[in-house]
Amino acid sequence: MSLAHGRHHLAIPGPSVMPDAVLRAMHRAAPNIYDGELIELTHSLIPDLRKVARTEGDVAIYIGNGHAAWEAALANVLAPGDAVLVPATGRFGIGWGEIADGLGAEVQLLDFGKRSPMDMDAIAEALRADIDHKIKAVLAVHVDTATSIKNDIAALRRVLDEAGHPALLMADCIASLACDRFEMDAWGADIMVTGCQKGLMVPPGLAFVFFNEKAARVQEGLPRVSRYWDWRPRANPEMFYQFFCGTAPTHHLHGLRVALDMLMDEGMEHVWQRHETCARAIWAACEAWGQGGPLELNVADPAFRSCAVTALRLGEDRATRLRKWTEYEAGVTLGIGLGMAEPGDPAWHGFFRLGHMGHLSAGMVMGMLGAVDAGLKACEIEHGPGALEAASAVLSNG
Amino acid sequence: MSLAHGRHHLAIPGPSVMPDAVLRAMHRAAPNIYDGELIELTHSLIPDLRKVARTEGDVAIYIGNGHAAWEAALANVLAPGDAVLVPATGRFGIGWGEIADGLGAEVQLLDFGKRSPMDMDAIAEALRADIDHKIKAVLAVHVDTATSIKNDIAALRRVLDEAGHPALLMADCIASLACDRFEMDAWGADIMVTGCQKGLMVPPGLAFVFFNEKAARVQEGLPRVSRYWDWRPRANPEMFYQFFCGTAPTHHLHGLRVALDMLMDEGMEHVWQRHETCARAIWAACEAWGQGGPLELNVADPAFRSCAVTALRLGEDRATRLRKWTEYEAGVTLGIGLGMAEPGDPAWHGFFRLGHMGHLSAGMVMGMLGAVDAGLKACEIEHGPGALEAASAVLSNG
Amino acid sequence: MSLAHGRHHLAIPGPSVMPDAVLRAMHRAAPNIYDGELIELTHSLIPDLRKVARTEGDVAIYIGNGHAAWEAALANVLAPGDAVLVPATGRFGIGWGEIADGLGAEVQLLDFGKRSPMDMDAIAEALRADIDHKIKAVLAVHVDTATSIKNDIAALRRVLDEAGHPALLMADCIASLACDRFEMDAWGADIMVTGCQKGLMVPPGLAFVFFNEKAARVQEGLPRVSRYWDWRPRANPEMFYQFFCGTAPTHHLHGLRVALDMLMDEGMEHVWQRHETCARAIWAACEAWGQGGPLELNVADPAFRSCAVTALRLGEDRATRLRKWTEYEAGVTLGIGLGMAEPGDPAWHGFFRLGHMGHLSAGMVMGMLGAVDAGLKACEIEHGPGALEAASAVLSNG
Amino acid sequence: MSLAHGRHHLAIPGPSVMPDAVLRAMHRAAPNIYDGELIELTHSLIPDLRKVARTEGDVAIYIGNGHAAWEAALANVLAPGDAVLVPATGRFGIGWGEIADGLGAEVQLLDFGKRSPMDMDAIAEALRADIDHKIKAVLAVHVDTATSIKNDIAALRRVLDEAGHPALLMADCIASLACDRFEMDAWGADIMVTGCQKGLMVPPGLAFVFFNEKAARVQEGLPRVSRYWDWRPRANPEMFYQFFCGTAPTHHLHGLRVALDMLMDEGMEHVWQRHETCARAIWAACEAWGQGGPLELNVADPAFRSCAVTALRLGEDRATRLRKWTEYEAGVTLGIGLGMAEPGDPAWHGFFRLGHMGHLSAGMVMGMLGAVDAGLKACEIEHGPGALEAASAVLSNG
Repeated sequence: MSLAHGRHHLAIPGPSVMPDAVLRAMHRAAPNIYDGELIELTHSLIPDLRKVARTEGDVAIYIGNGHAAWEAALANVLAPGDAVLVPATGRFGIGWGEIADGLGAEVQLLDFGKRSPMDMDAIAEALRADIDHKIKAVLAVHVDTATSIKNDIAALRRVLDEAGHPALLMADCIASLACDRFEMDAWGADIMVTGCQKGLMVPPGLAFVFFNEKAARVQEGLPRVSRYWDWRPRANPEMFYQFFCGTAPTHHLHGLRVALDMLMDEGMEHVWQRHETCARAIWAACEAWGQGGPLELNVADPAFRSCAVTALRLGEDRATRLRKWTEYEAGVTLGIGLGMAEPGDPAWHGFFRLGHMGHLSAGMVMGMLGAVDAGLKACEIEHGPGALEAASAVLSNG
Repeated sequence: MSLAHGRHHLAIPGPSVMPDAVLRAMHRAAPNIYDGELIELTHSLIPDLRKVARTEGDVAIYIGNGHAAWEAALANVLAPGDAVLVPATGRFGIGWGEIADGLGAEVQLLDFGKRSPMDMDAIAEALRADIDHKIKAVLAVHVDTATSIKNDIAALRRVLDEAGHPALLMADCIASLACDRFEMDAWGADIMVTGCQKGLMVPPGLAFVFFNEKAARVQEGLPRVSRYWDWRPRANPEMFYQFFCGTAPTHHLHGLRVALDMLMDEGMEHVWQRHETCARAIWAACEAWGQGGPLELNVADPAFRSCAVTALRLGEDRATRLRKWTEYEAGVTLGIGLGMAEPGDPAWHGFFRLGHMGHLSAGMVMGMLGAVDAGLKACEIEHGPGALEAASAVLSNG
Repeated sequence: MSLAHGRHHLAIPGPSVMPDAVLRAMHRAAPNIYDGELIELTHSLIPDLRKVARTEGDVAIYIGNGHAAWEAALANVLAPGDAVLVPATGRFGIGWGEIADGLGAEVQLLDFGKRSPMDMDAIAEALRADIDHKIKAVLAVHVDTATSIKNDIAALRRVLDEAGHPALLMADCIASLACDRFEMDAWGADIMVTGCQKGLMVPPGLAFVFFNEKAARVQEGLPRVSRYWDWRPRANPEMFYQFFCGTAPTHHLHGLRVALDMLMDEGMEHVWQRHETCARAIWAACEAWGQGGPLELNVADPAFRSCAVTALRLGEDRATRLRKWTEYEAGVTLGIGLGMAEPGDPAWHGFFRLGHMGHLSAGMVMGMLGAVDAGLKACEIEHGPGALEAASAVLSNG
Repeated sequence: MSLAHGRHHLAIPGPSVMPDAVLRAMHRAAPNIYDGELIELTHSLIPDLRKVARTEGDVAIYIGNGHAAWEAALANVLAPGDAVLVPATGRFGIGWGEIADGLGAEVQLLDFGKRSPMDMDAIAEALRADIDHKIKAVLAVHVDTATSIKNDIAALRRVLDEAGHPALLMADCIASLACDRFEMDAWGADIMVTGCQKGLMVPPGLAFVFFNEKAARVQEGLPRVSRYWDWRPRANPEMFYQFFCGTAPTHHLHGLRVALDMLMDEGMEHVWQRHETCARAIWAACEAWGQGGPLELNVADPAFRSCAVTALRLGEDRATRLRKWTEYEAGVTLGIGLGMAEPGDPAWHGFFRLGHMGHLSAGMVMGMLGAVDAGLKACEIEHGPGALEAASAVLSNG
């Protein structure tokens, strides 16, 4: 007998749980794309997207996923042969660098491993070594979805400034936007990329590139920019079709409108605070479990843990066994470990992740943690007591 | 800041949480009601409804709620002036008697209070006292949604048999069907009434009256039966419109088809076992909380507790405070206490109920209990420790 | 090859074509039924329902279909043995009388056949003959869905008044409400019954009984009223559950809210005018077809034709052949003929109906008529030319 | 009063009318993207996509629109400095060339105007003139959505073969796929690009690039291919995420699955035949209107008219007036003229288009044409008689 016959909870780090209201808004006949409601709706998205990103800059919307956002952003600022500095803290940092490589950039990788945030001193050193400013951009992942490490983008800005280096600061907020606090302008990011399927609570299919005037000037200096990726007409369209370089993603726009309404109604400060409280509850449970068994948070220092995703280490084959149990016996799907070991390596089965991004209530957090607690017991994985009450105590304080 | 910004969990004792697949099936254009798919679909429901009720008898479907099922069943077997015996164990038992009274029946109420199951000896006594068999039916609530008391219908059958009393045994399974084990034929119920919005997981709007041959014969002996309520053409229609005495509830039928598919796929034995395991987890948590504070299960003896709903007592204004917190701060709506105190009475705020019927996973149970645990802490209501792990331990054993 | 692979048009006289917005509103999680949004939403329906019916009277909402509305209305004003006068102009008039008969009423049927409206003189005579006022109500179908005859309810009021007869005037607007003009108070109907699945554009499942003070007084004078059907608590509930005598039809209420918003936004005068214009276009086409072949409008005098449904006569097996062709080859389902011949009679296949109620645009009318025109040609049924342009000319004038 | 209060018909040349079943399939919770049903579903799409395109070649799926397909295809076969031959027959042919230009290609444009198909002799001449085979690809639009000209791709293949020119033959089937017959392998296209929002009946958001072995070899010879656009891992993924270079478009995949099921059930031959019959009905109506007034089909020769879209010329401001009337008074939205005159030019208002692609029944065709007929009358635009019956006669022959 399985106890999974209920409303399934997809607790992976994206796509996140889609609000009913978003899905409902997307269930509609196709609209006219030359006239009428859709045009107005699309224009209305821009100021709200800016509020989510805390920027006065521009935003270009692409039909795509996070990798599309990566490529789009790079295609607007790099010419073949340009160098980029990639301070990686997980699989996704490395991945962005690979995309840059594919565009002909020379990639300088600073790999900080899988459990530590960026080392700002090492970055400063690399920048100072780049005397002739061959490095055109620093590709910084705010939260690496694989390791759940959160990096300090404001500190990175200071490093660039102190080094007097003109490279663009590009931030990947695919996992973090609308979950972990991020303030594009105040923190000094020149470009920020993200997708719609995590904190923005819309089914996968939209990618966003935010950019400031400095980035815009770099683009204008390039010898050539792909017409499809060119962010200028998208950010400042004269005709509606230019928003999307062709047919608009009609249904996703309706979904995004509702999702942004939800975020605006709640307020970004509350959205961030909610994610932080939920994350602290999750960490409290994980720490309690870890007191009496093999479970370990991948990131030791809470200051560098994401509020959107938590990577965990269980060792041996335990993570896979736990994931199978919660999915098939309790109706809660946990995320696989990503980039911590190769898929063929037995160690691969020792890692997993909890997604806690977007449409997330205290009740959902407790359901996810409760499923893990039952799963640890069912799989006979040793764990410390009191984890669930440690979490509920955090949540009870709001 | 509220932590309720996620997928809401409606944990009231009906309507229950609707499966996405059911809602999706209902989102469709209106079908032809004279020809085609709908006719076949409707016929396909009957054998599956019989399996859910464990009966070889007939079933009449009504567009209506549980009260409609009450009225429909009575309208087919009572003439004004007939007597009915109503052994009540909560508000709903009394309510069914009121419906009978409204139809002109003479109601003999045996009120067993709000915390104890039916007293079979008292019923036997009442039946024996009815020497001239004025009592035409015993209206027995299997599970009273207000008190969460579960009564022993098979035992009641034995009482009737031992008394040699010909009254029909009518069972109300509105709260219990497809949650608590119920076997209409084996247990000897002549009539069973239910609705679609609890264990059957369909939005409110359908009512069902199951009846056996003995009940059918009683109906045929009545001087007059309302054409609308008449169960004969509904149970054995010659033309499609007779199924519903007029226009069919087209969209609900599509929803019910999917819900029955889900139940058949899982299997009734597993459905009942799942509900029982979830209920035992809930009771374990409640008992742990109660060890260190005012929380008390309304029904002391587990043998008489429903696996679909749990009535709880917190005293003073605590239940209302707790409910408000879980709803507005954690995204979990608990049920109000019903029939335990008058709405104007301050004591009213000391009762609440947990709904755990239908589309229910272990993860959802832990989410609901986790929200209550956080709520008890937030509302500073004393409670014993270890409740959540007591529950997860039950669930881990499947 | 079939040309039916597109968005199907269900052109039967109910259920009607459901607006996407209505279906979308019904695709939602079950709401709390004791507190919150649903309570407010339900209260908001009442004033708008009154506007649709043009009455200051009360309205009781039932979970049910049109037959439920029939029974509910009668159950509130008749005692067994009371007489009712039934001036029938089709199958549905006769059917309402049968429901009254099933409740123990003595039914005086005045059958005016299938092609003519009520004969007011004959009704006046019957009323005058009822010297001791045994007749408690006149059951008048505004539009008979089977014959598409529209009767003059205001004239019937005058007949009652002139005869000085106190019987209640009960109007069945199941087919006509929100399609054909109907003004309950101005026209002097005491009771009006309807359903949600035609002009109100909501999937089948709600029934409505409107009643004025005179009807309320009659109800209060009855010896007994079924608690389930009793319209008093439903029309004037002290607690929310009394609206529906038990669990509310949660999803239908959301759908109805949207449908009423659509009607209120359009305005009832425009709604009626739109239906009338569409109906005139349909009649124009039918008359043109009839000029050169066997097609004949069932109702000769436009003054007595409904603007919601049109019954047609083709003779022999032509109607069934035409219906099959339009459904399977063109994606338009026409209504069967109802009550014009017995199902076993070959003549049965000579009748059909067009439904043009509710969510209906000029484009939809032309699509339906165009499918019929193609069908007449494909089935080699003789017909006059110019039908479609006769219709488009009517529509072009608005 | 408006007669548009019904189910709206979006008769523009894309997005097309979305089937209810497709939208319903997309209304679902986000699925796991690492395991389970989605993986299997995605693999199942490939063979069916091949059947739609009539190819044994590979297909890469992109999250994007038609312009994304253009860019994706070019990014896999062109290096900066390569030449392409663009034989344009409308705005979209020219547009594809602009995308090539943006990628650094040298574009040789052969503009055949807006009313004539490609001149094969001119193309042959251009190819013969390219002695050193600088031209790497011929970018041929099968159906130009702006002009509705359909070009003969098989003939173009013969031209290439006869010229002995090795350039790739790239076909744009964005408007035509699954509407107008297209046989990739038999006709000798090396690459074919399309989107999901027209004949494939899925909301905008997916783009497809089909390619054969010859095209694959060209790609392998390029010095560098963008990792995001690289069709190799997408067409032959080792891990699921490679299908989409990152997060999968989960909901669109579910919609596409249903749409492909519909196409497979109907059969491609029937799909093409249905579109052709509907198109012939539309042309018959247009020709009849044109006999007595200014309406003119943009493409004179039926052999070069698309079965998916029809461009029309009305002159002066008539097209805009007609479009406004049908949209706001009849509930049918027609397409604007595109690329026939500049937006600011008064002549712009003389053009419009009918979309008749994808989910299209005879009833829908007649509804669209009926709305136009009523609109011509309402706008007092002269037109010949008998147009609608000319159309219904075509449809009646299937």
